[in-house]
Amino acid sequence: MTWQSKNAVAQDGDLAEIVGLRHQHFIIKLKPGEELHTHRGIVRHDDLIGKPWGSQFFSHNGNPFFLLQPGLSDIIRSIPRSTQIMYPKDIGFMLVYMGIGPGRICVEAGTGSGSMTAALAFAVGDTGKVISYEINPDFQSIALKNLQRLGLDHRVILKTRDIRDGFDEKDVDVLFLDVQYPYDYIQQVKETLKPGGFFCSIVPTTNKVVLLLDALKREKFGFIEVCEVLLRYYKSDAEHFRPTDRMVAHTGYIVFARPMIIENETIPDCSLEKFDLE
Amino acid sequence: MTWQSKNAVAQDGDLAEIVGLRHQHFIIKLKPGEELHTHRGIVRHDDLIGKPWGSQFFSHNGNPFFLLQPGLSDIIRSIPRSTQIMYPKDIGFMLVYMGIGPGRICVEAGTGSGSMTAALAFAVGDTGKVISYEINPDFQSIALKNLQRLGLDHRVILKTRDIRDGFDEKDVDVLFLDVQYPYDYIQQVKETLKPGGFFCSIVPTTNKVVLLLDALKREKFGFIEVCEVLLRYYKSDAEHFRPTDRMVAHTGYIVFARPMIIENETIPDCSLEKFDLE
Amino acid sequence: MTWQSKNAVAQDGDLAEIVGLRHQHFIIKLKPGEELHTHRGIVRHDDLIGKPWGSQFFSHNGNPFFLLQPGLSDIIRSIPRSTQIMYPKDIGFMLVYMGIGPGRICVEAGTGSGSMTAALAFAVGDTGKVISYEINPDFQSIALKNLQRLGLDHRVILKTRDIRDGFDEKDVDVLFLDVQYPYDYIQQVKETLKPGGFFCSIVPTTNKVVLLLDALKREKFGFIEVCEVLLRYYKSDAEHFRPTDRMVAHTGYIVFARPMIIENETIPDCSLEKFDLE
Amino acid sequence: MTWQSKNAVAQDGDLAEIVGLRHQHFIIKLKPGEELHTHRGIVRHDDLIGKPWGSQFFSHNGNPFFLLQPGLSDIIRSIPRSTQIMYPKDIGFMLVYMGIGPGRICVEAGTGSGSMTAALAFAVGDTGKVISYEINPDFQSIALKNLQRLGLDHRVILKTRDIRDGFDEKDVDVLFLDVQYPYDYIQQVKETLKPGGFFCSIVPTTNKVVLLLDALKREKFGFIEVCEVLLRYYKSDAEHFRPTDRMVAHTGYIVFARPMIIENETIPDCSLEKFDLE
Repeated sequence: MTWQSKNAVAQDGDLAEIVGLRHQHFIIKLKPGEELHTHRGIVRHDDLIGKPWGSQFFSHNGNPFFLLQPGLSDIIRSIPRSTQIMYPKDIGFMLVYMGIGPGRICVEAGTGSGSMTAALAFAVGDTGKVISYEINPDFQSIALKNLQRLGLDHRVILKTRDIRDGFDEKDVDVLFLDVQYPYDYIQQVKETLKPGGFFCSIVPTTNKVVLLLDALKREKFGFIEVCEVLLRYYKSDAEHFRPTDRMVAHTGYIVFARPMIIENETIPDCSLEKFDLE
Repeated sequence: MTWQSKNAVAQDGDLAEIVGLRHQHFIIKLKPGEELHTHRGIVRHDDLIGKPWGSQFFSHNGNPFFLLQPGLSDIIRSIPRSTQIMYPKDIGFMLVYMGIGPGRICVEAGTGSGSMTAALAFAVGDTGKVISYEINPDFQSIALKNLQRLGLDHRVILKTRDIRDGFDEKDVDVLFLDVQYPYDYIQQVKETLKPGGFFCSIVPTTNKVVLLLDALKREKFGFIEVCEVLLRYYKSDAEHFRPTDRMVAHTGYIVFARPMIIENETIPDCSLEKFDLE
Repeated sequence: MTWQSKNAVAQDGDLAEIVGLRHQHFIIKLKPGEELHTHRGIVRHDDLIGKPWGSQFFSHNGNPFFLLQPGLSDIIRSIPRSTQIMYPKDIGFMLVYMGIGPGRICVEAGTGSGSMTAALAFAVGDTGKVISYEINPDFQSIALKNLQRLGLDHRVILKTRDIRDGFDEKDVDVLFLDVQYPYDYIQQVKETLKPGGFFCSIVPTTNKVVLLLDALKREKFGFIEVCEVLLRYYKSDAEHFRPTDRMVAHTGYIVFARPMIIENETIPDCSLEKFDLE
Repeated sequence: MTWQSKNAVAQDGDLAEIVGLRHQHFIIKLKPGEELHTHRGIVRHDDLIGKPWGSQFFSHNGNPFFLLQPGLSDIIRSIPRSTQIMYPKDIGFMLVYMGIGPGRICVEAGTGSGSMTAALAFAVGDTGKVISYEINPDFQSIALKNLQRLGLDHRVILKTRDIRDGFDEKDVDVLFLDVQYPYDYIQQVKETLKPGGFFCSIVPTTNKVVLLLDALKREKFGFIEVCEVLLRYYKSDAEHFRPTDRMVAHTGYIVFARPMIIENETIPDCSLEKFDLE
């Protein structure tokens, strides 16, 4: 079972999102006898267990809070950031682009603190599997704890390994690379992905995109696409409807590509965008 | 079984994406004896059955094509647009935001041609369910055909019904409203969603957002968020790396909200963005 | 003379921009004997007078600073914000769109703290004129001081008046409206602008855009355009070239329109964008 | 006199913008006896001379047209594009950023077809001057004709010269570089600009930005900023207010920098954005 309980009331062992005024925000595992100490008072788990999701409640000194089931975005954000941040806007597009759903087998490197691992494990369900490589054992033990807390660890195989030596898997459908120098491992990626499979990476700088494009072309990947997903929020004020003042301007460049069996070099440039603009 | 075969070679009954030069692009169901007629020659299904995914092949008159397994984005785009278009960039963010994955029960209105229905059914897997309402029986029979072709129909219950009369379901986790006047049905939505559940709608104009915000506040929904997802593509040319010249500038405004059990009116405005900007 | 001295060295009476580390930033009028007190030490004006523009110098306790001539953007930003902020990105596009250059006569309301007034006065030169209306005399005396400091006051006529009673001018080429309820004054605007002249306003919310569009159509304005200018900065790091993490997501919606002499209602919708996209 | 006549009626010799339905759009010089032949009929100049600006009129076969004075944006767009396109959104921000107004002396390379030259000449007025270098004499004779037509040629000095040999001018306030390899001429730029002066260039790719940043740092330029200006249009429909479907996604990266007199290498990174975000 993942954190997503279907019950209408919060129960012992559930992950709960506690939201207070001024965006105070916590994700906790409900456990009888425990307490959450906030700047606006103490919240007793016992007061929450048995309460319907979506309820307002009050801390010991009368401050209002709300009891919610966390969405996947909330879960992703709640994972401590030991490495690069993965944003829900980027993850959502990647999952849809590559068709990552129930039953899918995905290979990932590196695990980091496990936020993308968690998103993949959530999406593939109990019938799928995520194999995640990481060279740093400390990161991986953090990731394991995060996955256990979310009830997703049984869907993940963690391998503490340098991917320079290659991946164990063959004919994989999906491979996601979130490492510092992704362009150094494209040969290994090619040996693991099945022809026509989906490669994806996210890199922070244009310099790295350029190096990655070079490596992908050298290894005869086709259907290469680079894109950015931008998320613009609006103030939810019906009388004064307008965008918020500030926004996140950049998280990373997403690069997709597919290894191909080709006789010559002419692979059409076939982006989603091309079709959207028709 | 959905369209996502795990085989390394294309087989009878598989959905295949055929891509030619200059972005010619087809999604076909492989069937022995059939042919695909294109501007660049005839493609015989028999030539494709048994061929590895990711292969280059040639039409009867020698034009190059590629054989690919479609991603979810490709599938969504391939569904004929009888109503508003749903874009992968928007769908991806919605799925992640609301935590739609294996086992989830989702209610949707209206079905339209079934593109969002297909995305939801893909994500919830065989252990989940999508109940989709539509007033127009013609749309729904188109949607049914689309879902059957994708192997997703067994995950969907189609109801030909005016949602003005309410939904049959109670205590639902997720409700997605893609109808012309979503603000007319918020009371019905509230009766169906469980407290703390996820409501989502997408509307094309700011005028409609304003009316929807009014309706949501009237029905005491909380955690209301409005956002736009923008997708910016780049030319995948390592020597001349830069954005494409044109982009899709607008698809729709996404509105999220959650029904709450509250004693007073002060629900914190708690958007993902707030946390991102911290 | 405006603040833009052509001398290569700073002189008594020049406006100087003083920039220190960590974006400390001041615009001062150089005057013998005066001192600027900063968190990083005291800067004596006498040390700056006679120094070449573009020089590095040091405060009394050895902290490095730079001596620069301010650009128009710096000047605009340096005007204290008593009302809505005007951003260089928006002002620049407005000036070019409406062809505001030397010799142009412009009418503006309201003056506010004079930042747009200063930009207009800068652009029209000594052969042009800006007539600026403001109902609040306090704002106008602040604006006057700001204009005097910039050496631009002789190009401006300030009128302390409610524009509800109309403008004195007739057959004006350009009218810029930056008031709280611009849609209440479109009849007055029409009586002042010459046919084919340029109307421009900037409003913060979509609700106000909608009301303004209604008013403009009621008064038979044509060539109505609404747009937003977005400015995305990049980190100027050659090794790690990428956008900055945050950006200003919204300043305002710019609305342009032109009063027309028409016999019927069909005025083509003729935006710059239409041509750009051809 | 520039093309901006102050008369309320069109006169012999005026530049007029003629706009028809479906965005038909012409900029012509009015001359008695001449005719404009369009897909929607013939327009006789004699019918326009003496007519008020902003008037509707009809072609010989009854199609409606409008008579307008062109704005600077219209003028810029009307210059045939022999080289890279300069967009009003970019030009406007550059002019404001660098404080280019009446009396300013600007150096430019290359002239191209003269669209940026025209914008600069418009802004500096009769008291300013634009010195524009171009290696290709064919481009420069096209540019000269364009400037003459706009009444701006007396403000421009055209020099047919390879800037590899340097610029003649010294202690220049503003230098705009629009050449294919701007990073090859930064030493020459430095010898021409006065310390603290404004350098600006616009380049299409991130690869070129990276090379330019390297060159600027090598020559000890400071206050380097890179940005993009994005223009998003909206449909001017009050009932259905929303962005247009498509937009121009990329024109170029604008790079600003200022040559400094420094004793060491630490120049603060002092972008407008930094202040905007405070």
